[in-house]
Amino acid sequence: MIEKLLKLKEKNPKIIVGLMSGTSADGIDVAVVKVYNSGTKTKVETLGWKTFAFDEGLKKMILRNSQPETSKVDEICRLNFLLAQIYVDSIFKTLDELGIKPSEVDLIGSHGQTIQHLPNEVEIFGYKVKATLQIGDPGVIAKLSGIPTVGNFRVGDVALGGEGAPLVPYFDYLVFRSNKLNRLVLNIGGIANFTILKKNCDVEDVFAFDTGPGNMVVDSLMKLFFDREFDENGEIAQKGKVSDDLLQKMAQHPFINKKPPKSTGREEFGSNFVNQILKWSEELSLSPEDIIATATEFTVYAIYKNYENFVKPNVEVDEIIVSGGGARNKFMMWALERYFNVPVKFTDEFGISSDAKEAICFAVLANETISGNPSNIKSVTGARERTVLGGIYF
Amino acid sequence: MIEKLLKLKEKNPKIIVGLMSGTSADGIDVAVVKVYNSGTKTKVETLGWKTFAFDEGLKKMILRNSQPETSKVDEICRLNFLLAQIYVDSIFKTLDELGIKPSEVDLIGSHGQTIQHLPNEVEIFGYKVKATLQIGDPGVIAKLSGIPTVGNFRVGDVALGGEGAPLVPYFDYLVFRSNKLNRLVLNIGGIANFTILKKNCDVEDVFAFDTGPGNMVVDSLMKLFFDREFDENGEIAQKGKVSDDLLQKMAQHPFINKKPPKSTGREEFGSNFVNQILKWSEELSLSPEDIIATATEFTVYAIYKNYENFVKPNVEVDEIIVSGGGARNKFMMWALERYFNVPVKFTDEFGISSDAKEAICFAVLANETISGNPSNIKSVTGARERTVLGGIYF
Repeated sequence: MIEKLLKLKEKNPKIIVGLMSGTSADGIDVAVVKVYNSGTKTKVETLGWKTFAFDEGLKKMILRNSQPETSKVDEICRLNFLLAQIYVDSIFKTLDELGIKPSEVDLIGSHGQTIQHLPNEVEIFGYKVKATLQIGDPGVIAKLSGIPTVGNFRVGDVALGGEGAPLVPYFDYLVFRSNKLNRLVLNIGGIANFTILKKNCDVEDVFAFDTGPGNMVVDSLMKLFFDREFDENGEIAQKGKVSDDLLQKMAQHPFINKKPPKSTGREEFGSNFVNQILKWSEELSLSPEDIIATATEFTVYAIYKNYENFVKPNVEVDEIIVSGGGARNKFMMWALERYFNVPVKFTDEFGISSDAKEAICFAVLANETISGNPSNIKSVTGARERTVLGGIYF
Repeated sequence: MIEKLLKLKEKNPKIIVGLMSGTSADGIDVAVVKVYNSGTKTKVETLGWKTFAFDEGLKKMILRNSQPETSKVDEICRLNFLLAQIYVDSIFKTLDELGIKPSEVDLIGSHGQTIQHLPNEVEIFGYKVKATLQIGDPGVIAKLSGIPTVGNFRVGDVALGGEGAPLVPYFDYLVFRSNKLNRLVLNIGGIANFTILKKNCDVEDVFAFDTGPGNMVVDSLMKLFFDREFDENGEIAQKGKVSDDLLQKMAQHPFINKKPPKSTGREEFGSNFVNQILKWSEELSLSPEDIIATATEFTVYAIYKNYENFVKPNVEVDEIIVSGGGARNKFMMWALERYFNVPVKFTDEFGISSDAKEAICFAVLANETISGNPSNIKSVTGARERTVLGGIYF
């Protein structure tokens, strides 16, 4: 079996499945990629990917077991197996659609479903404890799929004092690092974050943090004004006009000028912030379209301001590579070009479907694990040591 | 790293730490063994072992998180890390006492702490789910010890439809199988169970099941009559006289003649059964010593009766090899010789400390994992396939 693993390690390229199960418990992304080499020589080609929504009942079961008050150990025990069973079904469906046989797949990299992430140290019985818990057992995935599986990526970094997150910046380093250009790799999901890759940079030069809202604020406002989930292609924003007054008020949010490392979420850019925007907008008599335009502009403003404050003094970027839902918002992309005045590209040009980037990330991280390469970055997660992440199951 | 694993696989002998954390949450056993070869050529030499009791507070935290009503996902998440931290401290203390450097240890095999074991299939969202959950993360053990660690042994067997238990019979098969003798390998813990190893048997010929109480009933009676935890060396039993009348009544317990596969616990031989014994004893006017003697005799009676009913028609055993607390009860051992009329030996003669057998078992199972050998037995656990158990962490 170890011989099999050695053969697998040396196989080039490999077909690897990456699996991401987001914290929001909406569903999973399954990506199938061809990975050439490993480490800084890694090249990735996306063969296909598919999203599977969870049933409402399953979503509820995951969310209630993510809360101390409503969680139960018997449900957690069963969910750990059930999710793995669902993952394997989803993998088989994706492969079937792509015309790839399970026996052609060399490896699976699975993030798992986070039901608890507690990187803040507490003392218990004299021990200092940081912890994280992902379920959807990689051992079950391996047995039911017949494909070697790497999982539990965050545990090793937390054990060595890190936050266990973010892990994507190492993937960015492998895939987007250039010998000629300084790059800013930007993901605009609910929250926006970027990874700075100076040309020829070493892994510990990588700099990454959250910059503020991504689509979160715009999406909330779209729901309120138009009962839609998001501003498709930025069309509503294009009908409005950015209000400088409103933008200046939003720009006062303390997160924008806070020094990195930093991370944010719904606590800071959720309903409280949206209600504040509505109040300001009323005072300024703005139309819904103007508010959407300004909130969209604000996402880019926050990205740029963070760049200007914390990156530009050391590294001037030559291009931006974008992924996430925000990449499809034209108004947002134009604003990005306007602020930065450098080419804005999409990860798709580099073989990485911009909607499946996280799933692809865990395929590449699994390749790093079996190649014996550490895949955390000390300056990004805060861990004491660089270390090989994940456990290997057959 | 894979190369390191390959080198490790080929190293002979290996120094391996085995770690068992019992379901009762009393504490852990750490065994350090030298293992030669693998598979049926396995030879084991015990270098030392140590038991560590858990603090009362930790025990309570484990037990409350083993019950659906009182469990909480944040505590489970932290316990998963905390237990691993405690395991590593215990390993280092044991090694220190034995004068072995951590860098000399090749591998750790850790059972983990079972907080839920649900092998009975239930249907959830159309999926048939069996599950088991051990915590004390092997990934954390590996990072904090710097020693490659195999853990989560039961998961793979359950994923393939098995009970995930017992796993010890495969260890018995590796270590006690003989070319010349039919052997009965007997463990007398709270419950008694045996593994039948016909001479020259193949792995799927192995037959193993629980026979009834081990020390559980005697220990309860010792507590009631003498406020002691157990009958040291069987001294109280030696002062009494076995009551045939009481023994005949106890022998009616339905578990004794139930067909294997079967397993039992406190539900069947706990306080209800003890109260029944007390009632019968009062009617028969027996002294505490007589009751202890009879209860001790009953353990052996149940072992023999199961042998007579379910084994002897096919295999006549040539010798018995005993481990567990019962091995130190002379009255029990004499009774065993009397019933079976074959030599009674102790696992210690075979290099396996009879008190550390389970911890040693997981050291040997870890060796099997990295050797690529399946270590479940279909006829014992009920799994669809033989499979390599456990995940590998660096």
